[in-house]
Amino acid sequence: MKLLEQKIAQEGTVIGTDILKVDMFLNHQIDVGLLNEMGKEFYRLFGHEQIDKIVTIEASGIAIACVASQYFNHVPVVFAKKTESRNLDAEVYESKVYSFTKQKEYSVRVSKKYLQPGEHVLIIDDFLANGQAVLGLIDIIRQAGAVPCGAGIAIEKGHQKGRSLIEAEGVRVESLAIVASMSEEDGVKFA
Amino acid sequence: MKLLEQKIAQEGTVIGTDILKVDMFLNHQIDVGLLNEMGKEFYRLFGHEQIDKIVTIEASGIAIACVASQYFNHVPVVFAKKTESRNLDAEVYESKVYSFTKQKEYSVRVSKKYLQPGEHVLIIDDFLANGQAVLGLIDIIRQAGAVPCGAGIAIEKGHQKGRSLIEAEGVRVESLAIVASMSEEDGVKFA
Repeated sequence: MKLLEQKIAQEGTVIGTDILKVDMFLNHQIDVGLLNEMGKEFYRLFGHEQIDKIVTIEASGIAIACVASQYFNHVPVVFAKKTESRNLDAEVYESKVYSFTKQKEYSVRVSKKYLQPGEHVLIIDDFLANGQAVLGLIDIIRQAGAVPCGAGIAIEKGHQKGRSLIEAEGVRVESLAIVASMSEEDGVKFA
Repeated sequence: MKLLEQKIAQEGTVIGTDILKVDMFLNHQIDVGLLNEMGKEFYRLFGHEQIDKIVTIEASGIAIACVASQYFNHVPVVFAKKTESRNLDAEVYESKVYSFTKQKEYSVRVSKKYLQPGEHVLIIDDFLANGQAVLGLIDIIRQAGAVPCGAGIAIEKGHQKGRSLIEAEGVRVESLAIVASMSEEDGVKFA
């Protein structure tokens, strides 16, 4: 998606060769007009499928998912909650996610009330790198007996293994911008 | 706002006399169609004023603020980040917020890049009770030399002191639903 790539090129900040900060329009300040265009593009990519619900993870995924929902007949959005707590709650579906960035494990949780057997669920998230968060959501969706129909990602780090892990689960991945490489000197190159 | 009051009455859950759970449509699962109507109502209440930016707090405020921004000419949304860390960062505006619910203090932070002197800022949040979070945002906005134009709240607990504390700061409060009282037996009564 050209508009998102331009935005990343113009306003993103690369730190080292692996950190891409998009605080200016996605992760701290949010450009809602851009989110509208992203929502339309997700609909172009997934709108031909049955989508009953959109699932995302707090915090940054929420904005993208809610604006996108408007193009999917306002299907409900459910955001998984991140918690470090380990005590199991019978009322939630829970999956462990390992964060390579933070080098620690956390839990993602969704109340059992908000995922029903047979529902077709689109996953939306801001970043895809190692894929652990999306794999956690796929796990939760399947625990509920629901069907993960696809993963719509804003920015994919194409040199990392997330896509192949998710596709190995039989779930289609569509990313609006795929970063092939990046460096502080040369900026971001897209796939 | 009748639609929100109906939704609270039908789908909200009262625990004791002070906890109102709206996980079904606002804080975990999100009804985006309802958020559209709330955004229109915020525009009716604040649209005659100059609004350059909307500021909210992660996580639940993000959805409300982003959908509302669409009715305010897509002004940028900035969400303050909650953190328990105490180390001061020169690049952020920070304010301490005491949570009566969790009985502990946390910090809210906004990068200095995303608030400019003279900007007119509308605060949007999901709940208003003791007002500490909104007061923290007002503090941050004023640290930046920006102007807090108002606080648009989804659900106000009218029997608590948040409104008077914010109004004492000279900031107008508009809440879409004001809870006068609630109990497990009788449900929610609106002001």
